[in-house]
Amino acid sequence: MQTDHNRIFVESTKRLLRRGAYSHLSKIVNKTHAADLAAVFRSLSVEQQRKLLEMISDIEQKGALFSELDEDTFLELIEGLEFDEIVRILESMPTDDAADIIGWLPEEKSQAILEKMKTAESEEIEDLLRYEDDTAGGIMVPDFIALREDVTAREAIESLQKEHLDVEMPFYLYVVDEYGKLVGVSSLRQLVVVGPNTPLKEFMTTDVFSVQTDMDQEEVAKIVARYDILAVPVVDPSNRLMGIVTVDDVIDILRNEATEDILKMAGAGEEFVETKSILKSTRIRLPWLFASCIGGIVAFFIISKFESSIYKVAYLAAFIPVIMGMGGNIGTQSSTIVVRGLATGRLNVRDIWSVVFKELAIGSILGLVYGTLIGSVAQFRYSIEALAISVALAVICSMSIAALVGSLVPMGFARINVDPAVATGPFVTTAIDIISVFFYFTIATTLLDI
Amino acid sequence: MQTDHNRIFVESTKRLLRRGAYSHLSKIVNKTHAADLAAVFRSLSVEQQRKLLEMISDIEQKGALFSELDEDTFLELIEGLEFDEIVRILESMPTDDAADIIGWLPEEKSQAILEKMKTAESEEIEDLLRYEDDTAGGIMVPDFIALREDVTAREAIESLQKEHLDVEMPFYLYVVDEYGKLVGVSSLRQLVVVGPNTPLKEFMTTDVFSVQTDMDQEEVAKIVARYDILAVPVVDPSNRLMGIVTVDDVIDILRNEATEDILKMAGAGEEFVETKSILKSTRIRLPWLFASCIGGIVAFFIISKFESSIYKVAYLAAFIPVIMGMGGNIGTQSSTIVVRGLATGRLNVRDIWSVVFKELAIGSILGLVYGTLIGSVAQFRYSIEALAISVALAVICSMSIAALVGSLVPMGFARINVDPAVATGPFVTTAIDIISVFFYFTIATTLLDI
Repeated sequence: MQTDHNRIFVESTKRLLRRGAYSHLSKIVNKTHAADLAAVFRSLSVEQQRKLLEMISDIEQKGALFSELDEDTFLELIEGLEFDEIVRILESMPTDDAADIIGWLPEEKSQAILEKMKTAESEEIEDLLRYEDDTAGGIMVPDFIALREDVTAREAIESLQKEHLDVEMPFYLYVVDEYGKLVGVSSLRQLVVVGPNTPLKEFMTTDVFSVQTDMDQEEVAKIVARYDILAVPVVDPSNRLMGIVTVDDVIDILRNEATEDILKMAGAGEEFVETKSILKSTRIRLPWLFASCIGGIVAFFIISKFESSIYKVAYLAAFIPVIMGMGGNIGTQSSTIVVRGLATGRLNVRDIWSVVFKELAIGSILGLVYGTLIGSVAQFRYSIEALAISVALAVICSMSIAALVGSLVPMGFARINVDPAVATGPFVTTAIDIISVFFYFTIATTLLDI
Repeated sequence: MQTDHNRIFVESTKRLLRRGAYSHLSKIVNKTHAADLAAVFRSLSVEQQRKLLEMISDIEQKGALFSELDEDTFLELIEGLEFDEIVRILESMPTDDAADIIGWLPEEKSQAILEKMKTAESEEIEDLLRYEDDTAGGIMVPDFIALREDVTAREAIESLQKEHLDVEMPFYLYVVDEYGKLVGVSSLRQLVVVGPNTPLKEFMTTDVFSVQTDMDQEEVAKIVARYDILAVPVVDPSNRLMGIVTVDDVIDILRNEATEDILKMAGAGEEFVETKSILKSTRIRLPWLFASCIGGIVAFFIISKFESSIYKVAYLAAFIPVIMGMGGNIGTQSSTIVVRGLATGRLNVRDIWSVVFKELAIGSILGLVYGTLIGSVAQFRYSIEALAISVALAVICSMSIAALVGSLVPMGFARINVDPAVATGPFVTTAIDIISVFFYFTIATTLLDI
């Protein structure tokens, strides 16, 4: 539905650009949400993008659009923009989004922009740039409402009417002591429910979830998701309130982390679909395939050790794909379930042995089922019992070991704090390929006595 | 960090249970957030779970815990609970969570519970149960604030103080006409910022994002994520406001959809790591492996057609794994990037040809690199030029075709509205295996003239 809507919008935008119907298009563009504009941008040429950007009359809308664009599209787009225009747009953006974008630019350009920006804005951005990109400090917004505990509900509401108008999500009011240290939180809702003269300290919650500036963004996201809160306060080591991380950023983090995990498991590293350059994509994927290339060459040397057996019994070779395939597929199933379970917190690293045992049991049962099936096909085709039994045994071994390796490897990596998603994919599959081929030929040459 | 925290909590809980230190444990349990309790529950035996549940004194805390549990754990846990206790706990829960849980129970039990519950509660739940589980109607909460447009800001605040105390996330106030149709929205923040006598119609936003009750939950989640809103109103076909979907539920939906996609791509269907029964897991995985079994058998018949060539040149067999492996891995990379791009909306179905062309180009370049490398290994080992060239060509073909198939298949499925995640995984890999083997033997037997 959403997709259809986008498609129609993209097509009509292109048509209007072709026709030069700018005044009509301009009306549409200025009524469209920045997120929808960003989706259209991806399908346009740079010239078309610039033309569309020019049509946006509201500077904040331009800023909102900037924050929705991905790195490659943004860098291409601003090539032709005037320096002053870029500065004005960045000034109009929420600080965290502006900081992200400035982080994409080359050092020289970002310095020039920061110098040109209003001091208050640029100082806030420079503060944020001090933190690592993927930590609470790097993703927090410095716009929050912090009041002292003797402030009354009425005074708090008044301060909302006068100050804090730029605060993005004013749903929580944080309460700090004289040193700026976080002592409590109140929701906007509580504020209107209590009597107007009640001081914050009487109704605030002192049990506040907070995170440190250096906490990994994925952990921050998990906390917000877990406790169903709309924002989490970020504090420095001495518990001073530095900023907040809001739920809309948390959604983006969780989606990106899921994407990263999926791509790592598929051995596509940090590549995203928005990576436009073929050479860049190739460079990212190249090393991941190296593992499977080395694995394949190892399998090759193993098989060539059995070359004399193959000269005697050529049909041995015909079963290589099915044995490798069955092992590879069940290994992928096991490792994926484990990696995702660990990522979502459904699986605990300490349950390693029960998980591995369960996977081994499943692998053995499925190995028995498919070993019998594939062994029967071998028997039907060649009527050599020793061959059929060898094939069946090889499938059973391969599938059991694959399920074992597929679950043990990511659990083990997680235990020593290495990202389990990286450990999966090409590495596990390749290991399974080698083990499967080795067991198959060893069993077959023994049973067939060749 | 979160994980460490959990681990310590699980271990101390188990230790206190073993020691029978119930009064100490009871204090801890009653101070712990339901989400943390649920995480501990997964690592305990049913008896331990029941003991812990008994210790919770607050009925709402019990309800909050219920809504955090997964289906299998919940069904086991309530086996030993008294019927009246279950009813009381369900009554204390938010309607949407209670409806989800009642949906898990067998028909007979759920009917008995609904009859026993307070009429108002059970009617709301039955209303929700009318909608499909995975639609906006199935996930909405019926607790929202709806006011008429002539209500003033002060009156609106007063209504918050008296009524609507059970509303979970009172951040938006919806404005409806005399027929209950949605006409606008105001945030709680606007309410305190405007003058007390201003009627809603003067400051409400009339441009409200709303969704229909039958919209798929994934679409709903994408809208909330896209427009950075905290809740989206759900309306019936005549635009009457029926409920809202809140951002905390959206996070759960996005995470679950990502998990489902990952598992489908790995060919592990709807299995989750919390599926406890080995037989159930086996049953879920069995059919997915069937595709790769059939594919393997097809590859077997292809190779056995070339049996006479293998008798002459046994080392042909040794390259099967590396050729299959390289094709399989790049195919997985391509299809994963496409599937995830479609899921996150970064990729548009209409860009099918540019995406497929890009993947084909990447596949060809990488094929050239690895084909040369693997061909050189063949040359080094056997010093037969025709063999080395055959192997190199087979790798190039296999990797190019794999990238083509890996991107074309999910794009094609998405175009005809079939879930692309299902199309990937075993199906694509199996197709690539067959194609690779076929090309390899055809090229090799032609060039080697055997």
